[in-house]
This record gives sequence, structure tokens and C-alpha cells, in this order.
Amino acid sequence: MIKAGIFGATGYSGVELAQILQRHLDVEILFATSQSFVGQWLDEVYPQAPHLPLIAGEEAPLEQADVVFLCLPHAAAANTAVRALAADCRVIDLSADFRLRDAAVYEAWYNAPHPAPDLLATAVYGLTEHVRCQLPDAQLVANPGCYPTSVLLALRPLLQAGVPLAGPIIADSKSGVSGAGRTPKQTTHFVEAANNFSPYKIGRVHRHLPEMEQFIHQFASDAQLIFSPHLLPVPRGILSTIYAPIGSGMSQTDLRRLFLDAYAAEPFVRVLPAGQLATLAHVTHTNRCAIGLTEAGDTLILTSAIDNLVKGAAGQAVQNMNVMMNLEETSGLR
Amino acid sequence: MIKAGIFGATGYSGVELAQILQRHLDVEILFATSQSFVGQWLDEVYPQAPHLPLIAGEEAPLEQADVVFLCLPHAAAANTAVRALAADCRVIDLSADFRLRDAAVYEAWYNAPHPAPDLLATAVYGLTEHVRCQLPDAQLVANPGCYPTSVLLALRPLLQAGVPLAGPIIADSKSGVSGAGRTPKQTTHFVEAANNFSPYKIGRVHRHLPEMEQFIHQFASDAQLIFSPHLLPVPRGILSTIYAPIGSGMSQTDLRRLFLDAYAAEPFVRVLPAGQLATLAHVTHTNRCAIGLTEAGDTLILTSAIDNLVKGAAGQAVQNMNVMMNLEETSGLR
Amino acid sequence: MIKAGIFGATGYSGVELAQILQRHLDVEILFATSQSFVGQWLDEVYPQAPHLPLIAGEEAPLEQADVVFLCLPHAAAANTAVRALAADCRVIDLSADFRLRDAAVYEAWYNAPHPAPDLLATAVYGLTEHVRCQLPDAQLVANPGCYPTSVLLALRPLLQAGVPLAGPIIADSKSGVSGAGRTPKQTTHFVEAANNFSPYKIGRVHRHLPEMEQFIHQFASDAQLIFSPHLLPVPRGILSTIYAPIGSGMSQTDLRRLFLDAYAAEPFVRVLPAGQLATLAHVTHTNRCAIGLTEAGDTLILTSAIDNLVKGAAGQAVQNMNVMMNLEETSGLR
Amino acid sequence: MIKAGIFGATGYSGVELAQILQRHLDVEILFATSQSFVGQWLDEVYPQAPHLPLIAGEEAPLEQADVVFLCLPHAAAANTAVRALAADCRVIDLSADFRLRDAAVYEAWYNAPHPAPDLLATAVYGLTEHVRCQLPDAQLVANPGCYPTSVLLALRPLLQAGVPLAGPIIADSKSGVSGAGRTPKQTTHFVEAANNFSPYKIGRVHRHLPEMEQFIHQFASDAQLIFSPHLLPVPRGILSTIYAPIGSGMSQTDLRRLFLDAYAAEPFVRVLPAGQLATLAHVTHTNRCAIGLTEAGDTLILTSAIDNLVKGAAGQAVQNMNVMMNLEETSGLR
Repeated sequence: MIKAGIFGATGYSGVELAQILQRHLDVEILFATSQSFVGQWLDEVYPQAPHLPLIAGEEAPLEQADVVFLCLPHAAAANTAVRALAADCRVIDLSADFRLRDAAVYEAWYNAPHPAPDLLATAVYGLTEHVRCQLPDAQLVANPGCYPTSVLLALRPLLQAGVPLAGPIIADSKSGVSGAGRTPKQTTHFVEAANNFSPYKIGRVHRHLPEMEQFIHQFASDAQLIFSPHLLPVPRGILSTIYAPIGSGMSQTDLRRLFLDAYAAEPFVRVLPAGQLATLAHVTHTNRCAIGLTEAGDTLILTSAIDNLVKGAAGQAVQNMNVMMNLEETSGLR
Repeated sequence: MIKAGIFGATGYSGVELAQILQRHLDVEILFATSQSFVGQWLDEVYPQAPHLPLIAGEEAPLEQADVVFLCLPHAAAANTAVRALAADCRVIDLSADFRLRDAAVYEAWYNAPHPAPDLLATAVYGLTEHVRCQLPDAQLVANPGCYPTSVLLALRPLLQAGVPLAGPIIADSKSGVSGAGRTPKQTTHFVEAANNFSPYKIGRVHRHLPEMEQFIHQFASDAQLIFSPHLLPVPRGILSTIYAPIGSGMSQTDLRRLFLDAYAAEPFVRVLPAGQLATLAHVTHTNRCAIGLTEAGDTLILTSAIDNLVKGAAGQAVQNMNVMMNLEETSGLR
Repeated sequence: MIKAGIFGATGYSGVELAQILQRHLDVEILFATSQSFVGQWLDEVYPQAPHLPLIAGEEAPLEQADVVFLCLPHAAAANTAVRALAADCRVIDLSADFRLRDAAVYEAWYNAPHPAPDLLATAVYGLTEHVRCQLPDAQLVANPGCYPTSVLLALRPLLQAGVPLAGPIIADSKSGVSGAGRTPKQTTHFVEAANNFSPYKIGRVHRHLPEMEQFIHQFASDAQLIFSPHLLPVPRGILSTIYAPIGSGMSQTDLRRLFLDAYAAEPFVRVLPAGQLATLAHVTHTNRCAIGLTEAGDTLILTSAIDNLVKGAAGQAVQNMNVMMNLEETSGLR
Repeated sequence: MIKAGIFGATGYSGVELAQILQRHLDVEILFATSQSFVGQWLDEVYPQAPHLPLIAGEEAPLEQADVVFLCLPHAAAANTAVRALAADCRVIDLSADFRLRDAAVYEAWYNAPHPAPDLLATAVYGLTEHVRCQLPDAQLVANPGCYPTSVLLALRPLLQAGVPLAGPIIADSKSGVSGAGRTPKQTTHFVEAANNFSPYKIGRVHRHLPEMEQFIHQFASDAQLIFSPHLLPVPRGILSTIYAPIGSGMSQTDLRRLFLDAYAAEPFVRVLPAGQLATLAHVTHTNRCAIGLTEAGDTLILTSAIDNLVKGAAGQAVQNMNVMMNLEETSGLR
């Protein structure tokens, strides 16, 4: 029985994680921390959540844990990772702290020096399908961002095959409101989000952009990405519509073949039949990614859907844990 | 041209009022105040609102105003009313401060002494259809609460006719989220309000209860009300389903006749044809109240729908102003 | 391994059932029928559903099935039940066909003679918590309606204890749109249901009324029920706010004790702590019923929430099957 | 007083038009037709609509009308236009029948010969801001499609200035559900549209594509458009996120200047301040188009928002009528 701890169990990713781990037959939740609700129970905060006591982060019994999940704000996550690694826990960090390999890039985008730059080189960027073989040895996994998961799973077959690009890739992404976090804000007020639809931080300014470009540049060092996030009036789900200008003369059949080959054996990635497009209905409340392919002249249009709280956060974190711990990869996720 | 001032223009009632007054051909908006957005423009806060500068409440040029609307928290409203009346403005208060005639009842429900108890006797409770003839002479109008407007317009024909009641009246009311105000709270977060439906403060504990009972007791001094508000996942609108145990042997035809007679000449109250029930679709974005009548044995079931921000707040406030100022009652409200 | 068949797998209850049975470790789905989608796969109709071929009802291999679930329109369900019982299947009918014990009452409410009146006496009305001990021997179970489940679970402790009622019980119920079925109608069009809230068939005219009164009259033969259903702009969930005029002088503590005693050992019914009210957030996507108790004078206000597709349909059907088959009652339902 | 007739008043565009014309001080609604509701009143179908009798299309008193609006399916619209023009009415057609100038293109996209090809040359494509000076003489106006209005108003300043394009333009558009029409379909069922978000007909297959390319090709004969419509879970509103690869070295300031100059005097088009993006909240229930400009390298990202039923249909139709009839352009539309 694996003993797992959750830091930050009362945010949306944290409670999703608690629910998944509760169903997981090989895991016992050792502790759950909260900043605002210490002394209460998790199901007092979310009526459907497991009945877990909420303790302060500083009181977490790290020495008894096998693995800890960090659902904390950036910087707080890195500091907790340092403590947890020192206590010999394996760490799966759902924050952005260990996703960027270069501390200078981190500082540029997060306006503060990295709290633990020495750990950056050891962290594995946990897009499970891409790094499966590195996970069993990983001590520290940087769980990918929600938008990057939807975009990178869709682009990966193209990038791995070295398909040349004739211009910038455009990712027009739409996310449900839970992506904005649980702290109430004007933009997440029901009255302002319902019946509305809003782009925000479009172009080259969202913090998920460098995370995606770092991945892309491993394969195509000068590829450029334009990223346009939008706020969708649904609680959960991300759909990314991705425009890739294909610079080769590859046929639609060959492109489709690349995707089918890349994901044929994957339990959680589904390449949709020709003519079918990905929608949120394919994926919400599951750990799946659905990918549709459409051609328009020389542009390949990819539609890629995930649940931002599952495959985009807590689900992929558990998938990573399963592989790290040599469990069945799908345990707790069906 | 009537010069009107709005205190608290950046709350939901305030901005609704600004939009109505902007369309009103006989009114000029002299000023609009805000606590949080002084120095900005109203359409920076709400993209569809009029382009009005936002000033601090203390800087409002009261001496130039004919009428002021108070869309302020309770207590702040009473204090502003005192200032405005001293400057010879007529005052329409959308807060609860002047709705209860008895300062002791106010103190019991609002946990603080009334800030201006001397004014209570002069305030007119502005359920327009009921007090139309008192409005032209009123200096201070207490605009009714949103729930009370939906419930009292429905009960009024019964009360006025002295129809005996055989037990407590039950008002099971459902309100859109804008009724909870603009300040972001956990309960108004999109992720928690969407797909949800919640009763709150049911029974005899909501602050609108004494307001309704005060009205009812004018006609039936021992009638009792049970009031169950619920939060509905829509931005605006209230539907009250009201159960009145009729103690007489009045026929359905006679009961319907009471309602038709009471509201035949009313521009904003519509008694629906037999068999039709009130829904939010009848009333949202209008100043109307739609009332349906259904019988179940000796119980009369009334369905009463309004838009909480219009007939339940800003619209009724303008309707009151129109009558106070001898304007066409429907000006700005069609 | 129990072999189960689903008649009508492409309606909302049917696909919910398919998803639950798919997760159920002791059950194999032998077949799934459809009227409109014969020859297709269930996951072509619902992208998240299990990958099951859809066959015509007439081709169902009844002789190999242990149990069949009927998610069919009324009359069609009764006719299929006759066939299935003849083939020695046990039958769980989610339609209304076997809920009313009196064929004359059925005819009065459904405007047609009952298709199989001889079976009425043998059917068990499957409110699991109430008839648990009769289920192991039942061949034919009438799964309760969604509204009745929410109302009757809440009233049952009062009825069983014989608490006297001083007047009609009022059930003001609000249901998500899936309760109206999958066939597209004007009232279920997104544009007309979103931002709206509508009462319908209120008073004593909805077909779930005789089903509820039949249950109630077992305990209080002259009790009367007023039932007001409303359409709520959410996909799933029912909240019933129930007003019971308590004719005894029972204290709040004693009333609460009745409920706690009635449901202490129940895995799926939760009596909420004092001061807490049931909401949809307590129950959606679960087989739970949450019940809150509030007093207002002599009226007990019960708030009772279920997911109409789970405890109100497919989940309770599986719960019934589990008890019938001597399986763990919660199998497949956690 | 202008006498106007509405063909097809019970669709979403038709009823929106009836509501706008009802408020229009210079217009009298002479008749309103319906196919499904002949003999009923419009406010029986939509509780907030004007109280207008619904007659059959064949009984419309064309000879008394000054102008007729066609809110009919394609083909039916063209046939009615022929009749109305013969009766000397001016015609504003909200269908697609007169938008494409080439009957062969029409036939290719609508799979049927054009019903009135001789009229195509006389029809004015009524993007009001673009063809204002042609409208006073027009007998037949083809009101633009909803998606084209949002896309073309955004592209027009670039096209008119002859800014060179370095590749295909991409329009990633998101529309509220009313764009799919009032006839209930599975995709517009509340349960399937709520919480969902779906691309459809993306690439080069939607019928609005040739309409947009026809406009674009007037300025840039070889420009190519990729068009990706998506269904958004809101009742109304379109947001198009448009990616234009700018082939010149134009500065952001110069590009912004083009837009400000193009729309400085327009009552209904608002170029947003630098840094602001268009959202549905800017435009729903108004005749406005809000346009935001963002640069990402050599790509200009335009965000363009309209209300699909107002500026995208009925509002623009009335705007066109106002200009045709030499009325104030904004009459009835504020």
C-alpha cells in the first residue's frame, strides 16, 4: 500500500486528486493539507470529497509518506519539494515550479528567482506518454500544465516525426472556469462568466507559452508558437484548436498514420476516426485526451480535448505516480 | 430634465439603474459614485454600461440633484439618505434601511441600531402598485427587496380582499445569482454555482422575512409566512412558488377575478391566462411581474416571476421615481 | 458473473446504466438495445459510453440473460417484461409500468389500459431502503420514479413513525433537464432552458403524484400531497423542498432522531447535520440521497437531493439488482 | 410611418426583429408570418415578444408593405423575395439566398439551383458599414451571415488598405447556440450543449466560407481563409479570434491607426483600446461589434465580438433598413 500525501487539498486540483486517490486500490491517503481550512474536514469544504482531516503543511508527516503531490502556488511548491525530497519522498509537483529547465526563463516569467534552481536538472517533465521510461527512476516530477497537456499531446507525433513547419503554430485554446482556480475573482463570478466568453493573455504572454516552446524546441529549435487562451463558461474541460502549417507535401493519410502509430497502444489518448472532431463531451471527468485531425490546404487542424482537472492535472499526476511506482498505469483512473 | 444621482453605481443594481436612466428621455445622470473604482469610468467596469465618471460618495454634488438613488450597503444607505434629504434631494433607497418601520425590528435583524430612526415614519415602502398615490408627496422611498416584490405582488389581491387563510403561507423562492451581489464569494464562483442548486436561510431566518410579514400583517395581523430562498444557476430572475391555504370556500373563478381586478390597469403586472404558469422567460430584462394561479384542493398555488435587478430593484426604483416626479410611469422601462 | 441486458440503452437512463454496469466487477453486459441506433455502437451516440453494439429489442438473447433492465417508454416496458419473465430473466423496470398497483389508477393517469395487469401484484416497488428484504425473492422490480425517490426517502421516517400531519404535504421539486428525456423538444432546447426556470404540471396533475400518494397512503391513508415540479437549468439533479405540517408537538430533537435512526446504517442516504441543507452539489454523479431538516414553527422543512439519473434511475436500479442477486449492495456504485 | 412585414417571425432572428421593430418609433409592423404557428400570437410562442397575430406567408398583404424582412430558410426566401419585389416592396433577406453573387457557387454549396438567379446582380450585400452609400437605392439587400459579419468587419480595414498577407487567414469562431436555429436537435439539447464545447465543419466546409471569401477576394484575389466554427454553451453571441499573417513590416501603431480611421465615425463598431480584447460581454443584446487588436510577431490577432441575433442578423437588418429609408441609422437600435 502506497502512502501518499496531498499538499493543498482544498484547491480544485487537490480535491480532484483526493477523489481519485480515494478510489485507488493501491494507495492510502496519509495526509491532506490546507492553508485556509486547517482543523476542518475536506468534505466540509466539498460535500462530495472524501472525509479527510485537513492539517497544516508544516505538520505533514513526510517521513511516513512514499509520495507527495504538491497542489500549491508556485514558489510554495518548490519549497515544499525541497523538504519532501529531503525526507526521501518522491514528489509530483502540479505547480509550474519545475516545468521550465532554465532558471533564467523561470525568473523572466514568474518575476522572482527560482526557489530551488539546483533541482531543475533532476526534474522530469511528466507528460506521461512522452517520458514513460524515465518515470520509474524519477524522484521529482513536474506535472505539465493543463493547456500544455492538450497542445503537446496533439503536436507530439508531428514533432517526433520531424515534419517541417512552414510558419508559426497557432494554438487557440478554450478552458473551463476551474482552470482559473478556486479563489473567487470577478472574472470567475457566475454572473460575469455565465453567458460570456473571453480571450485573455493571447499572443505570446501566457505563462504556459515558454513551457510549450521548451518542449517543442527539443524537436524543432526555431518553431514559434502563438497561444490564445479563452475562458469558456463550463466548469471543466479544455479544447485546443491547433493550426500547424505543414511544410512538407505529406498526404492526409500519412499524417493520420503518424498519429495512429504514436498513440496506438496508449490507454488514455484516442486519435478520433477521420471526420470526427474532439469535443469536451469526449473527455470530461476522464483522464483521456481525444485528438481529431482535419486538413485545410497545407494547414493541419488538430482538435485536442482533455479535462483540465484530470488529464490536465490530478489524473495525469496519478498516471505518473502509477508508472513511477510500477503499478498498473490505469489504476484509479478508469 | 430631472437630475439624478446614483450612489453605488458599480454594484449590479447600480449599473442596471445607470443603464435604465441612460435610456430615460426625461432624466440626466448627474453623478455616479463608487467605493472601489473612484477615478475610473463605469464602462471600464462593465463594458456595456454608460460612459460615466465614477466619483467618491463624499464628492457627490447633492445640491444640484433632484433625486438620488442609493444602491449602497445597509447603514451606509441611511447615512447618505440623511445627507441627501438635508440637501433637499428626494431619495429612493434600494437598501433595506427604510423598509422596516420599527427600529427595534431592524436592530433585531441587522444586529445594529438603526442609523436614522427618526426617518422611518416618513419613508414610503415603494411597492409601486400598492402605494402609487403616496409617491408624489414622498421625500424618501424604501424600494422593496427583490424577493418581497415577487411574493407581495402575488399575495396582495388576496390580502386586500381579506381572503381568510387556514394556515401559514409558504413562499418557496428561487433567485438568480446576481441577487447575491457582485463581491465574489465562494458560493457565487462559477464552478460552484453552475450545475448546482441550493436552498439557504430557509424557514424563518432570511432578512426579507420581516419585510414581507410587515406588509402582510397590515391586512392579516396573525398570518404567518414560511420563506425558503434558493440559489438558481442563472444570472438574473426570481420565481416564487407560493402556497396559500385558502380558508374560505372561494371558487377558482372568484379567486382569479380578484387578481384580474387588482391588476387590470397595471402596465407591469400580468395575471396569466388560466393554465399558464409564470417562468423567468416571461420577465427577464423587463420590469414586469408575471403571476400564474393554480389550485390544488384548498391551496392556491401562485407562481410569480420578476427580474430581480429590474422590477426587484432598479426598474421599480425608476418606476417609483416616475410616479414621484409625475412622469409617465413607464418612461425608460419599455 | 451476472449476465445483464439493457433495453433502451440510448436514453439518458440507459446510458447511465451502461456506464455503471461497465464498472461493476460482478456483471457482464450481455446486450444493449436501441430503437433508433440499431447497428451502431453506444459510444458513437455518447462519446464516453462503453463500446457496445446496439441491437434491436426483438433480437435480444433473453434466454442467456440473468437480469434485464428496461429503460423503455411505458407500455413498451410492460410488453418487454412479459417476454423477459417468460424467458426466466429477472426484470428491473425503470418505466412507470409496474409502479402503480391498481390497473384502474394506471389507466386513469396513462390514458390506456395496462398492458399486463396480472403482473401488478407480483411487482416490488423498488425503493431499496424500504423493501430491501423483499428484493432477493423478487422477479419483477418497479424502479421508483426520480421525483418520488427524492420525496419518499425524505418522508419515510415520518410516515413509518406515524407522525400525525395537520394538513397537506407540499413537495416543491426542481429537476435538471435530463429528467425530460433525450428526445429534443422546444422546452429542452439550450436557448430556451438556459437562463430560465419553469414550473410545470404543478398541483395534482403530474404522473408521479399517484405513485407518491400510493406509498404515503400505506401509512397515512388520508394524507394529501401537493406536488410542484420545476425545470432547472442544470443537466442533472433533483432537489425537493418538502413542507410537512407536523400535527404533534414533537420537538426538533425528536424529529431529527427519527431520521438518524431510520438511516443510520444506510450506505446511500445521508441525514445532514443540523443547520445544513441538501444541495445538488452533495449528490450529482453519485447514488446518494442527502436530506436536511429545518423547522419553521409547526412545519418541518425537508430538503432532499438526489441525482435523477443515478439514485433516481440507473443507480437505484443497480442497487436493487445487487440486493436481488445477493451482491454487495454498493458494488459498482462507489 | 414605415410599414414593415416579417416573414418567419417565430425563428430566433424573426422574433428578435419583431422586438426591435416594436421599439422603433418610425416603423409599424404590418404583419408577421409563421409556418408552424398560424392563427396563434407571437407572444404565445415567446412570452416576451410583441402581441402580433401570426398569419400564413401566402396571406401576407404585400401590396401595403414598404419593406419586408425574410427570416426564412434558403430557397423559400428567394421565392418570397420575387413575390415581394413584384409587389414593389423593398426586401431585406436574412437568409443566404442573395449573398453569393455567382449562381454556380450557390449551387455548389447549397446543392440546388438558385431559385432566382436573375436577382443576384441587383442584390446589395448589406454589411452596412461597407455599403452604406449603396443602400438608399437598393431594392434587395442580402443581410450578411452572423459569422461573416464578425470576421469581415474585423478584416475590412486591412483589406481596404491593401495590407499584404503572408499566408492564409485563420478565423477561429465561437457561436452561441441560437446560431443553430430554433428547431430542436440533439446538438442543441440542453443536456448535450451545456458543459460542452464542440468544433464543427472546420477547415473549408462551412457555408459561410464562400460568403467570406467572396468579400475578401474583392481586395485580395488570392487570399485564402481557414474557418473553424465552434458551438459555445451560451444562448447568444459570437467571438471570432482571427489570425492574419501580415506580410508587410507595418508597425503595431500603424495597424491600429488603420482600424481607428476605418471606424472612427461608426456608431456600432468599437475598436478597443490597446491591451483590451473583445468579449461577448461587450456586445450581447446590442448591435455593436467590438474589435481588439493584438500582435504576436508578424501575426495580427483580431478578436471580434457581436451578438449573432442582433448585429449578426436582426439588428443589422434594421440598420440596413434605416439607411435604405433615410432614417437615423441608429433608430430602434440603442
